[in-house]
Amino acid sequence: MQPIKVYADRRSQPSRAVIIFCRANQIDFEEIKVDLFKAQHRTAEFRKVNPMGQVPAIVDGRFKLFESHAILRYLASVFPGVPDHWYPADLFTRAKIESILDWHHSNLRRGAATLIMNRALAPFLGITPSPEAAKQAENLLVQSLGSIESVWLKGDSKFLLGSPQPSIADLSLVCEIMQLEILGDDVRDRYLGAHEKILTWIDNVKKATSPHFEEAHELLFNVKALMQSKVAAAAHQPSSKLKIASKL
Amino acid sequence: MQPIKVYADRRSQPSRAVIIFCRANQIDFEEIKVDLFKAQHRTAEFRKVNPMGQVPAIVDGRFKLFESHAILRYLASVFPGVPDHWYPADLFTRAKIESILDWHHSNLRRGAATLIMNRALAPFLGITPSPEAAKQAENLLVQSLGSIESVWLKGDSKFLLGSPQPSIADLSLVCEIMQLEILGDDVRDRYLGAHEKILTWIDNVKKATSPHFEEAHELLFNVKALMQSKVAAAAHQPSSKLKIASKL
Repeated sequence: MQPIKVYADRRSQPSRAVIIFCRANQIDFEEIKVDLFKAQHRTAEFRKVNPMGQVPAIVDGRFKLFESHAILRYLASVFPGVPDHWYPADLFTRAKIESILDWHHSNLRRGAATLIMNRALAPFLGITPSPEAAKQAENLLVQSLGSIESVWLKGDSKFLLGSPQPSIADLSLVCEIMQLEILGDDVRDRYLGAHEKILTWIDNVKKATSPHFEEAHELLFNVKALMQSKVAAAAHQPSSKLKIASKL
Repeated sequence: MQPIKVYADRRSQPSRAVIIFCRANQIDFEEIKVDLFKAQHRTAEFRKVNPMGQVPAIVDGRFKLFESHAILRYLASVFPGVPDHWYPADLFTRAKIESILDWHHSNLRRGAATLIMNRALAPFLGITPSPEAAKQAENLLVQSLGSIESVWLKGDSKFLLGSPQPSIADLSLVCEIMQLEILGDDVRDRYLGAHEKILTWIDNVKKATSPHFEEAHELLFNVKALMQSKVAAAAHQPSSKLKIASKL
């Protein structure tokens, strides 16, 4: 069997979710890096893979697919070796997982990704950040974290919905939350510090997919270190601080 | 069999999608109105049905579910009478439909719903509208309409992905686009006028689900008429115009 092609930038949270899923389930794949910071997702070549110009995207033989949740569902369905808990065949359990996956887009993802874009990544991607959008996104993030804890991590839940094993929803949402690392330890702790259940849950997903989870997140921590060193350098050099501030 | 309960406000586009789907597939249901303008979605009673406080939500016996796409998938899966085209069992076709459903959240829905909220509905819901958010949403809407036409309605496609019959993705996206009616004929035409394929596609979905489509949209057209008459009245009465403008 020809390995599937996974077009990804590991700095993108849904890219990491797909990579971790493949590794954890021994799905043979070739990773093709699409550098978002170099706008490689906007090239005519990449648009032949995904006309929407977003990562991740996969190519399985002649079949092309984009949107990470759709990719995770597809992989869990066509590779017979994938254990049922990732995307249960039981219609009721599956429906509850679908509900989380759908909710994710307009809540946790919209909150976290918009916040990180406007507070950290925008200048690197040539985008003008908006303080108003950042504030609104922050509210949505805080509300979303509260909902995850009170609705899906009730009691001694190891994973979402009280499951003893992770689903693709656990993986997608945890990869999203991990992106907060980019904002630095203090900011991350401000959002997550009060959510003990979420912190335990992140750790459970990490352990269930180790060492692939850590490996897929290595680049994110490199980006974090780089951004922190730039912030520190700017704090010691008033001129460069001004330069960064004006870009922000 | 006990009918399922559908908690909905027909002024909400995903509520309409679920209602049309049930009617078109002879799924017996009891519609329970949740008036968004009266904040009935935020009551403690409704939060027992959907802790996220959003419509639509369903209750099927002891089983509760929210998020319209998850509901549509569930209904298509558990009711044996639903024709396959709505949510095909074929994994490749299904994956392509999932891709559209996922894309929808952060693109067409985010664009259209945010625009309508900030340009029309905000004052009625006690929300302060943001011109910046409206502008950004407008760009996303325009881009999303272009993508639907160029990616999924290529050639003489009757429905998305070149299918001869509609899927739950067609229904969800068309109900979203129908919401633009609230902005008035001129504004709707400004967005849709140049997209002949989209206009034909909307008509195809309408015909495929007639008369349920028209019936579910009646309330939307009443809201539209009401809003247009308020705009017209405001144009003739400078004082009330000022009052509306200050609320906007």
